[in-house]
Amino acid sequence: MKFAFLAFNDLEELDLMGPWELLGGGLKNEGIIDEAFIVAESDAVITCAKGLQILPHYSFETCPEFEYILIPGGWGTRAEAKNSVLLDFLKTRSANCKAVLSVCTGSFILAEIGLLKGKQATTHWGSLDRLREFGGIEVIEERYTNDGEVWCSAGISAGMDMALAFINDTFGEDIAEKIQFYTEYYPQGTVYGKPEENDQAPGYLKA
Amino acid sequence: MKFAFLAFNDLEELDLMGPWELLGGGLKNEGIIDEAFIVAESDAVITCAKGLQILPHYSFETCPEFEYILIPGGWGTRAEAKNSVLLDFLKTRSANCKAVLSVCTGSFILAEIGLLKGKQATTHWGSLDRLREFGGIEVIEERYTNDGEVWCSAGISAGMDMALAFINDTFGEDIAEKIQFYTEYYPQGTVYGKPEENDQAPGYLKA
Repeated sequence: MKFAFLAFNDLEELDLMGPWELLGGGLKNEGIIDEAFIVAESDAVITCAKGLQILPHYSFETCPEFEYILIPGGWGTRAEAKNSVLLDFLKTRSANCKAVLSVCTGSFILAEIGLLKGKQATTHWGSLDRLREFGGIEVIEERYTNDGEVWCSAGISAGMDMALAFINDTFGEDIAEKIQFYTEYYPQGTVYGKPEENDQAPGYLKA
Repeated sequence: MKFAFLAFNDLEELDLMGPWELLGGGLKNEGIIDEAFIVAESDAVITCAKGLQILPHYSFETCPEFEYILIPGGWGTRAEAKNSVLLDFLKTRSANCKAVLSVCTGSFILAEIGLLKGKQATTHWGSLDRLREFGGIEVIEERYTNDGEVWCSAGISAGMDMALAFINDTFGEDIAEKIQFYTEYYPQGTVYGKPEENDQAPGYLKA
């Protein structure tokens, strides 16, 4: 099995790299998948939102078949949600996937190809209203949502909570335990300031 | 002010990318630093431990002055801890830094250049004994340590807890609050399985 990670200019780095570590590295370490790779429209260097430069392993043309794909968010999603080449690739390829996952504003790309129609979904707190305005989506203010074969997480770092929940749900708690232990994903949970008092705070933070 | 992030082959992706998002992206967004960049021995493509390919912004030769530097861990640290070109660069440049931070086994590189002598430090749970055997270091089993201008975190994802603690300590809670809110770093804290029963579990997990 193969796990694809979509890349495009101005993607948010941690949206991609948190799940890349847990899902890509972790599932390959455990022998669940045989390949994790970065796929982009072309072979050109991708410049991420905070300036990191990465090289795709495959272009849309050379990309092998895959069972899973993760779509990160970031400012770049505004342009990519209108990129018919990218949307066509995803629409065609996701039809054969066992699961499709998005982080942050990556959910807008899933929305554009119809994968969120009538489904629960979420996104970064700064884009929740925009996702509601898209229409036909039940927007939930949790760390992540799972509706059928579609998983969506809240902003940036929430992709890691989603990744482990997806691993637990799909491959079992033993595998989730091993990957969480290896990566020491036991955050201390310190909250700085009073974000729950922010008008824009997502529901899960106010609860 | 500038924040450098050291890169080398077989670095562990999330070791670098968690802090890159919070410290690099976050501090630049808040106007605290004017540049965050990846620096490596040469301009060549870096292949990380889980296969991600990244391009450095600067080589050791072209690298501008910087106030802060973060050293990630990963299997590559075993080779780099013996790489005199890298150690010379770090030793010379870190002398002018306001703070030096390591994630995971990045602490072995700090140990090699003498920065951990007589100091508290930590590393990935799988390398705690090895760091004790290095000698002259007070190895602590916490998410992160801070001793003077040196910060060390436990494995992989622990770099994010360290990054926010460093921001809070150095630039204040308002800045830490803003960066944590933007990146939605409010992990749900789910623990899969019973890692605390593992003989190799670090102290902070057993407590």
